[in-house]
Amino acid sequence: MLSLIRGTALAKVVAENATRLEDVENRVNLFVYDEIFEGKRLSETINQHHINSKYLPHVKLPENLVAFTDLVESAKYADIIVFAIPSKHITDFCKTLLGKIKPNALAVSLIKGFLPSESGIELISHAITKYLKVPCAVLIGVNLATEIVSNKFCEATLGCRDTKQTRILKELFKGPSLRVVVVDDADCVEICGLLKHIIAFGTGLLDGLECNENIKSALIRLGLLEMMHFTDIFFPGSKLATFFESSGLSDLITVCYGSRNRRIAEAFIRTDYTIEQLEGELLKGQKLLGPVVAKEVNNMLNNKGVEGKFPIFTMIHRICEYTSKPRELIQCIFDVPDDIILLGCSTPSLKNILDL
Amino acid sequence: MLSLIRGTALAKVVAENATRLEDVENRVNLFVYDEIFEGKRLSETINQHHINSKYLPHVKLPENLVAFTDLVESAKYADIIVFAIPSKHITDFCKTLLGKIKPNALAVSLIKGFLPSESGIELISHAITKYLKVPCAVLIGVNLATEIVSNKFCEATLGCRDTKQTRILKELFKGPSLRVVVVDDADCVEICGLLKHIIAFGTGLLDGLECNENIKSALIRLGLLEMMHFTDIFFPGSKLATFFESSGLSDLITVCYGSRNRRIAEAFIRTDYTIEQLEGELLKGQKLLGPVVAKEVNNMLNNKGVEGKFPIFTMIHRICEYTSKPRELIQCIFDVPDDIILLGCSTPSLKNILDL
Repeated sequence: MLSLIRGTALAKVVAENATRLEDVENRVNLFVYDEIFEGKRLSETINQHHINSKYLPHVKLPENLVAFTDLVESAKYADIIVFAIPSKHITDFCKTLLGKIKPNALAVSLIKGFLPSESGIELISHAITKYLKVPCAVLIGVNLATEIVSNKFCEATLGCRDTKQTRILKELFKGPSLRVVVVDDADCVEICGLLKHIIAFGTGLLDGLECNENIKSALIRLGLLEMMHFTDIFFPGSKLATFFESSGLSDLITVCYGSRNRRIAEAFIRTDYTIEQLEGELLKGQKLLGPVVAKEVNNMLNNKGVEGKFPIFTMIHRICEYTSKPRELIQCIFDVPDDIILLGCSTPSLKNILDL
Repeated sequence: MLSLIRGTALAKVVAENATRLEDVENRVNLFVYDEIFEGKRLSETINQHHINSKYLPHVKLPENLVAFTDLVESAKYADIIVFAIPSKHITDFCKTLLGKIKPNALAVSLIKGFLPSESGIELISHAITKYLKVPCAVLIGVNLATEIVSNKFCEATLGCRDTKQTRILKELFKGPSLRVVVVDDADCVEICGLLKHIIAFGTGLLDGLECNENIKSALIRLGLLEMMHFTDIFFPGSKLATFFESSGLSDLITVCYGSRNRRIAEAFIRTDYTIEQLEGELLKGQKLLGPVVAKEVNNMLNNKGVEGKFPIFTMIHRICEYTSKPRELIQCIFDVPDDIILLGCSTPSLKNILDL
């Protein structure tokens, strides 16, 4: 477990499950940076008092969760290595670990975001496999750290290409109120987790423009269709069923009604700030995923010459680039062609599915 | 046009379109009950002042919209007859009109609800065809009368089996802010319009129980899957694509975030009233569609022996019948089997779609 707040919350779940499961090593290692927090080494506070005083101060952690400040030491004997770090650090982490871990280890990524590459979006799970030479599963869904540890209802979809790992992954990650479903369609799980941010940003624009709920639900629906078509073109072989998992439709609805992409897009309309100023003010300069993903997606659509088949992704991107006015999104949604369902389906598969 | 408030709003749209369309008779007839409102005959107020003083007092109606108090007179020369009356009156209206209308007329139903029959739910469009001996299209979607007339963004899906009528129906019903898509899958459009009320009632229960948004989005997603499976079993031949029209996913999301089913279910939890008392108090005794549809659906599932494959429909029905506690819905959602996507798919078609 390599981790900050969300990682610590899920490490707690995994460690509790590890004590219960007979065929699993009891100890769960948690890598933390070697830092002093409130006068004490964070790793020592975790190991002596079983509290992550910096990230989850009010939550008692299981005693079999052991903090390490040496990355290689924490991971070298692990069969499963869970990544929960900012995406920008992933290549460094992989380079440090390469050749130092079990060759048959399985990685699991909880990371939000992607790596920009020449061809557009590189999925984090693909990058981990490329740099660390091990397969990588992904866990995405409707779960916030604070909700996981306070036993509020959460869901996660775990995408793992190796179906032999299904049972153990489910047993490790499920919690008393955390519903986990494992599917083999990992790319679809991960790309949905990115594309949803574009639509969430769009609903925030509509909220800022004081639109009604009708147009918001239209945007969610038409946005989901563009997500399906995009996935079909750029990640062929993905399954329609995966869009009906938590990582698909549920996560999309949740971020469209409450997320920082929605909130900041609304603030962008209601204030005189630019998106960049709001990122500086509200996210300490961190980039918001909605505009960043919209930009990469737009590059990919352009390179393929299919931008015109994705009117919503394209319009939200243009608004983020200040080349279209936010109000144009309303007309854009109104003008989506009737046969959008069939547009953008390059492969016969999805076209057949959607037009039985 | 046979109509109350929603009918009057859509009659306005149709009448405005009729003046614009060359191949359409300019006059649109509106049947209203022969009643006195504020000291004047309602039909005369409409015809002299172009105001429906009872149902839409602040809206100027087009002059080519002509009120009739004689049902047969209003409909006898019509090529298209639009029904917007309470469902309980439909058989009487059809009996009055039978044999008195053009034999090749097309009916369009805007009616919410259904007719109970021996085999469960009888769709209104089926009943109109049965009693009036003409084909019947349906118009369902995210549109309230007040939003239509104030030019707020609205959507409608028009289900019409006869694809030769697609163009004219679209031209007649679309408005400056009313987006209309015509599909040939009329049964699916109509049954979705009923099943959504069960899920909306369920989300209201969750709101009353002060659950988080995660479980609400899980209920919408899993509810949509049960809607698909139900449609697949009881209305075979329906298309998956239709669930992605406004009448499907958008309408479902909209009623789950704001509708009287959601609101009264929430009030049922937060107060000491029974559902029946709330109907008496808040709906003047009118029956709420969520519990009524849930009951008929449950009968149909029972008769087919597939109740167990629809855990959410079944639980919401039991809560409405007071045989399960509202809180049980939470565990029910948590316990939905992983392979729900494949459950309940009796025909190979949908199973193949969803499990490519």
